[in-house]
Amino acid sequence: MAEEPQLTHLSERGEARMVDVSDKQVTARRASALGVVAISAECAALLRSGGVPKGDAFSVARIAGIMAAKNTAQLIPLCHPLPLTGTTVEVELVGETVEIRTSVKTTSRTGVEMEALTAAAVACCAFIDMVKGVDRLARIERVEVVTKSGGRSGDWSRQT
Amino acid sequence: MAEEPQLTHLSERGEARMVDVSDKQVTARRASALGVVAISAECAALLRSGGVPKGDAFSVARIAGIMAAKNTAQLIPLCHPLPLTGTTVEVELVGETVEIRTSVKTTSRTGVEMEALTAAAVACCAFIDMVKGVDRLARIERVEVVTKSGGRSGDWSRQT
Amino acid sequence: MAEEPQLTHLSERGEARMVDVSDKQVTARRASALGVVAISAECAALLRSGGVPKGDAFSVARIAGIMAAKNTAQLIPLCHPLPLTGTTVEVELVGETVEIRTSVKTTSRTGVEMEALTAAAVACCAFIDMVKGVDRLARIERVEVVTKSGGRSGDWSRQT
Amino acid sequence: MAEEPQLTHLSERGEARMVDVSDKQVTARRASALGVVAISAECAALLRSGGVPKGDAFSVARIAGIMAAKNTAQLIPLCHPLPLTGTTVEVELVGETVEIRTSVKTTSRTGVEMEALTAAAVACCAFIDMVKGVDRLARIERVEVVTKSGGRSGDWSRQT
Amino acid sequence: MAEEPQLTHLSERGEARMVDVSDKQVTARRASALGVVAISAECAALLRSGGVPKGDAFSVARIAGIMAAKNTAQLIPLCHPLPLTGTTVEVELVGETVEIRTSVKTTSRTGVEMEALTAAAVACCAFIDMVKGVDRLARIERVEVVTKSGGRSGDWSRQT
Amino acid sequence: MAEEPQLTHLSERGEARMVDVSDKQVTARRASALGVVAISAECAALLRSGGVPKGDAFSVARIAGIMAAKNTAQLIPLCHPLPLTGTTVEVELVGETVEIRTSVKTTSRTGVEMEALTAAAVACCAFIDMVKGVDRLARIERVEVVTKSGGRSGDWSRQT
Repeated sequence: MAEEPQLTHLSERGEARMVDVSDKQVTARRASALGVVAISAECAALLRSGGVPKGDAFSVARIAGIMAAKNTAQLIPLCHPLPLTGTTVEVELVGETVEIRTSVKTTSRTGVEMEALTAAAVACCAFIDMVKGVDRLARIERVEVVTKSGGRSGDWSRQT
Repeated sequence: MAEEPQLTHLSERGEARMVDVSDKQVTARRASALGVVAISAECAALLRSGGVPKGDAFSVARIAGIMAAKNTAQLIPLCHPLPLTGTTVEVELVGETVEIRTSVKTTSRTGVEMEALTAAAVACCAFIDMVKGVDRLARIERVEVVTKSGGRSGDWSRQT
Repeated sequence: MAEEPQLTHLSERGEARMVDVSDKQVTARRASALGVVAISAECAALLRSGGVPKGDAFSVARIAGIMAAKNTAQLIPLCHPLPLTGTTVEVELVGETVEIRTSVKTTSRTGVEMEALTAAAVACCAFIDMVKGVDRLARIERVEVVTKSGGRSGDWSRQT
Repeated sequence: MAEEPQLTHLSERGEARMVDVSDKQVTARRASALGVVAISAECAALLRSGGVPKGDAFSVARIAGIMAAKNTAQLIPLCHPLPLTGTTVEVELVGETVEIRTSVKTTSRTGVEMEALTAAAVACCAFIDMVKGVDRLARIERVEVVTKSGGRSGDWSRQT
Repeated sequence: MAEEPQLTHLSERGEARMVDVSDKQVTARRASALGVVAISAECAALLRSGGVPKGDAFSVARIAGIMAAKNTAQLIPLCHPLPLTGTTVEVELVGETVEIRTSVKTTSRTGVEMEALTAAAVACCAFIDMVKGVDRLARIERVEVVTKSGGRSGDWSRQT
Repeated sequence: MAEEPQLTHLSERGEARMVDVSDKQVTARRASALGVVAISAECAALLRSGGVPKGDAFSVARIAGIMAAKNTAQLIPLCHPLPLTGTTVEVELVGETVEIRTSVKTTSRTGVEMEALTAAAVACCAFIDMVKGVDRLARIERVEVVTKSGGRSGDWSRQT
């Protein structure tokens, strides 16, 4: 009989646990994620306009994302604390959306998908905080892990 | 000449700042948000199956959301620290999605939209952490503020 | 039929929530707690001996307790964030025990029992960290709320 | 002449310090702890009763414990920050007590007793927070390290 | 006999405590601080040069300062947690120094000098982190509270 | 043509990033920093006087510094989280100044200058918090990295 797939973060009794990764290999691991914020045409125009420097709107989202990557183990209850070796967050205005791409690296026993995902989600929230005064409807329309590499399960990339 | 809309978190020089709300009224304020995680049919079936108790998968997301509401001022650089007076996070399995609804209350000088939004986004991330072992493609397909009440700008509700 | 007592932090569906205290009165509130660490005779003698100044062993526990009082809403998932207006932690060597007494005050919508209790528990842990090199068996033998005042339910004191 | 035992966290001048473990071996290490909360007969009956699901009362304590294990270096002033590789917290109702057992693993230069102890203490506090509305007298009656393995000092187990 | 001045954060026994401010008035309070970082001529020239955008070097310091203001009660052991109502951090290149000016507001029972000072100190550190790769000698040459207003002790300004 | 020196924390587009150190060697690294607080003659005399124990004024600064070393990655946006293996903070009264010397060690891929610097800066702030009631003019007059060792760039020491 085929074994039922398991929710690895739950014990046999269905109780939350931080999975034991003690015996996994320390290897270089990397993950990337994408977050997309939908904004109004007026807000997009304002962000592109030259009247007032808008640079910090993007900087705040970038920095919030980088810091969230480092805070992931405090935010996601069952995540392992990991020594991140690099993190980038890119914020780009594309039409009436803002695309936020995160990339996180570690050399550790488990992967950094959650760090990349959480960084993207929090950066999206921080960006919305910057523009909510002019665009009440700004909303996150996607956050997802895009690529993952390193570790036993090897490289992986979302097909879109 | 009509005044250009402003990004209120930026100064005239375009620099990030925490907006001065000292002169705003202390009033009861409330906001709610919705987050939606798309999961696979297999994952949805597993969450509904009776073989293993899955309660903690939902509990973890709920608790992560409540704690994120309280951590918002640490996560979103320009948010004011607010004394939250109540927070709920509901996690419901609806077809092949998980709907996460947050509600946050305060009695303070500024609103709690960002707390509701951030709680929803982090709860979505925590839920994905619980199921990623069985559903690599699990992803956030929406996070948005849904209602807001209290304060000078009055009640507001997203039209959907 | 008499109503069954409720776990107030659970909804009717048994789900964790941060209770809504929006309509409670802002009043002066206070709570105190006691923590007791049992140590060995040798450890007690060392702490009393004059050869080396031991002051920081007590200071570390005091400061850890004060900081834990302030961190309670980050540690205890459903606690409300409260603006503490005063906190003391006293650490006293009594025979072969260390008694840690905490007192916490606020002017707010809900009480500070959990702050007093958590401060005492963490101060006990911090004290054990200081002495564990000389006393592996050091252990917490009690942590409890002792008094509470303010709020609708009035003054309360544990009978011992 | 026999050397006096030392409080290793204090310098020769009695000043607090984070002990230098740079030259210790990186090895697999593990520790477990036990916390016991005494509750009333009425509270124990309520937790066992079928009328309302009580699962989240236990989940909240479990998750608070896991997160506290990860926060130990922030809570206990002189603890080293360690990359935990696994953490479990079990919460069990035994008569009129709740037994909370924690287990923490790392592969690092120093042990995780404090992480196991702090996780147990904070989980006990979180459990009391869940039941304090129905049992004001709920109290921690014990928190202690139970076993320890790995590192130069080898395996150790509390005799009870 | 004139009374000896007191260190208000110490009890009569010289023990650290968070001072009780429960009976102080809730009033609008404000404080500002100045931090100065000395940098090399080469570093100053690089920051002024047009070849590469340098905006984020300043943004990072600003945002680190704003977040530090909010974290003050976690960083400074005996500080009260306060609901900040506004915070600005300005970073300006002046000759071969970087001047960082912080302004913090609250409506609360105690003042925000420590928030202004800590924000300035941490912003200085964050700025040094940005430039240390090109200027190893960058150093903080001053951090001080400059003005304070509100509360019983009234307005105050450092004479320079 | 000589290459222009780079701000390593900025990308080619001038955007903040956490530098990728994945390929750097894991080596023993160490850094020390100095912070100096200038106080009034009256305050210095009070700290030296025998009437009331003043020990906790120094302990608070020491402990705040040690904890800040551990919090550096949360405070300085682009710092890597590092597993510190040792930290000391010494606080000494020298004439009308207080000298705070920090020393931080790790075995990791990048150095700990920022940890040493941030620990010194926050310890200075915490010390000022202790004495500000008797010395409003207390101020930081210097914070700087003093030595650094380990890693590719080798040993370094500030010439004074």
